[in-house]
Amino acid sequence: MNARSLPDPPAVVGMPVADVDTPALLVDLDALERNLDALARSLAGAPVRVRPHAKSHKCPEIARRQIARGAVGVCCQKVSEAETLVHHGIGDVFIVNEIVGASKLDRLARLAGEARLGVTVDDEHNIDAVSRAMVAAGTTVDVLVEIDVGLRRCGVEPGPDAVRLARRVADAPNLRFVGLQAYHGRAQHVRRYEDRQASARAAADLTRRTLDLLADAGLQAPVVTGGGTGTYLFDAASGVYNELQPGSYVFMDVDYGLNLDRDDEPVSFFEQSLFVLTTVMSRAMPDRAVVDAGLKSHSVDSGMPRVHGVAGARFTRASDEHGVIELDDPGALSLGEKITLVPGHCDPTVNMHDWLVCVRDNQVEDLWPIAARGASR
Amino acid sequence: MNARSLPDPPAVVGMPVADVDTPALLVDLDALERNLDALARSLAGAPVRVRPHAKSHKCPEIARRQIARGAVGVCCQKVSEAETLVHHGIGDVFIVNEIVGASKLDRLARLAGEARLGVTVDDEHNIDAVSRAMVAAGTTVDVLVEIDVGLRRCGVEPGPDAVRLARRVADAPNLRFVGLQAYHGRAQHVRRYEDRQASARAAADLTRRTLDLLADAGLQAPVVTGGGTGTYLFDAASGVYNELQPGSYVFMDVDYGLNLDRDDEPVSFFEQSLFVLTTVMSRAMPDRAVVDAGLKSHSVDSGMPRVHGVAGARFTRASDEHGVIELDDPGALSLGEKITLVPGHCDPTVNMHDWLVCVRDNQVEDLWPIAARGASR
Repeated sequence: MNARSLPDPPAVVGMPVADVDTPALLVDLDALERNLDALARSLAGAPVRVRPHAKSHKCPEIARRQIARGAVGVCCQKVSEAETLVHHGIGDVFIVNEIVGASKLDRLARLAGEARLGVTVDDEHNIDAVSRAMVAAGTTVDVLVEIDVGLRRCGVEPGPDAVRLARRVADAPNLRFVGLQAYHGRAQHVRRYEDRQASARAAADLTRRTLDLLADAGLQAPVVTGGGTGTYLFDAASGVYNELQPGSYVFMDVDYGLNLDRDDEPVSFFEQSLFVLTTVMSRAMPDRAVVDAGLKSHSVDSGMPRVHGVAGARFTRASDEHGVIELDDPGALSLGEKITLVPGHCDPTVNMHDWLVCVRDNQVEDLWPIAARGASR
Repeated sequence: MNARSLPDPPAVVGMPVADVDTPALLVDLDALERNLDALARSLAGAPVRVRPHAKSHKCPEIARRQIARGAVGVCCQKVSEAETLVHHGIGDVFIVNEIVGASKLDRLARLAGEARLGVTVDDEHNIDAVSRAMVAAGTTVDVLVEIDVGLRRCGVEPGPDAVRLARRVADAPNLRFVGLQAYHGRAQHVRRYEDRQASARAAADLTRRTLDLLADAGLQAPVVTGGGTGTYLFDAASGVYNELQPGSYVFMDVDYGLNLDRDDEPVSFFEQSLFVLTTVMSRAMPDRAVVDAGLKSHSVDSGMPRVHGVAGARFTRASDEHGVIELDDPGALSLGEKITLVPGHCDPTVNMHDWLVCVRDNQVEDLWPIAARGASR
């Protein structure tokens, strides 16, 4: 059925970055490795496990490097992502998301025979459906009950509703109740440090109350998972969370770069490692340059990309295959020049590309397939 | 190097739509065919050729159906799109966009040996580079000079600058000067009918002035191309354009649906044929349903998608793999229910998917690969 093949990679190993075809998704390997190390170092000795979110990179090569630095496994959002990760050798994957529908649950149940697998629930009928699928496949899955600690997306209210679902999981054949999914996505992007900390604390308080009720009901919750790039240090110190799922920290983006540190300066703990390489394709007008990376090369859902390393250059508009950059200096940027953009939002940007072009010392060191690109089912 | 394979299609031919896995990109074949017919019919007898823009669909199956209804060929934005189209049998492709850089021009020049090919220029050094590549490959290409008629993106000012470039093309080895690219992208989305008509007329006037100057200079411009789904009827009646490049009309989207007709009612000439099929994955809260199609399944650059056929349901927020739908009626939408979304912007939505699931009479009739997905180079 695969009547189309993947696009060729935009580079070959050993090539100077200047020769990479555009648009291309670059990862600065030094910065990536420093980010991976910084996360591990910042949690050394903390009573938490790390289970990074693979939805950000969709790339088994990066998952392997996270696990090599101590991660217990990874998490992801979809069955097809989990399949890709498991088939590339990742042995411990939590789908921190609800999986609904018979065909997906059949695949989930089969996959649970190949790896340690977790899944998230927020509905009793869904719990029964997951259980039936597992029984049919003769497999077992770890189950997290999701509580809504402020994201206002999936999850039941913290408190008795969660206990009711946990009991149902514990009683259902071929399900193992392992704990709570308590991810506060909105808190990640609260700009001021103290406000972000307060949001994280509120989520932890709601989670703690639910854990107390679970204990009262005699239900053990060995896993309490949540946290993202914006709050994971608060979550690690909460005494509530014991598994953290940051994802964007490997790459960073414009949106995360707007978060502020304690001193009201932009956070700098993680570095930008992800860039879109693009070529100036038009300089017909003095006040603007047009580049060849638009809505099909980077996601603008969280705002426009930032032009990296060019003073007085602002990316102001994107159409399908164009980016318009307004220039203070009409002499800046010449036709054919290659520049890099910092994506507004890393995760959906990565999902547009088939290849990560890995760069070090201005040279292409490796090409990593974004193996789970498009794996949204 | 293709260390990852394409995701499997979300359906098999003959399956009821209710069994299609989600998220999936559906095309209603009846609506698509009516749109294809409506465009052809609306231009019957008009002194214009149709060359639809393939960047919207990236799908040779649709290009073939456009040509079968009288299109002279298609246009596209990138060399890699043109390669895909030509290798799937499309013999006449204009890249209505500037192509910059030696590796792309080498590929363009080779491809020009396999099909009738056009390319667009707005810079004299680029003209020389295109010519050199063609000479090296021993091929010839049709060249359009782009003028900026209001889009403020690529293109030189209408008038003498365009004549200067046209002369340079005409004098360059292995280039054929064929005319002007004069696309007014902004005019497509001007909401009121009379305002949209006025924008299109202003673009036509600038183009006519440039054509007069070209004629004074003894330069023939047999092709004057532009127009989109929003203005093509105005452009057809302008007496200036003789080739039109609408793209979105095959699918339509929320944004185009906001354009108004002469009576200030929403335009209805083309029908919505493109939908994202999605499953309700959480109903934990009475006021909202969460679906499994987020930023990785549809593009929100032009606004949120519209929930199709469900009264009182508003898609208000998207994260990577979730859509939050607020409900007036807490009893609307049940867990596991499949619904369809009208994408905010069709082109970048299509580019996220590998397969078009073709539906008729509530059944999957065909699966078309989106052969040029990701072909942004």
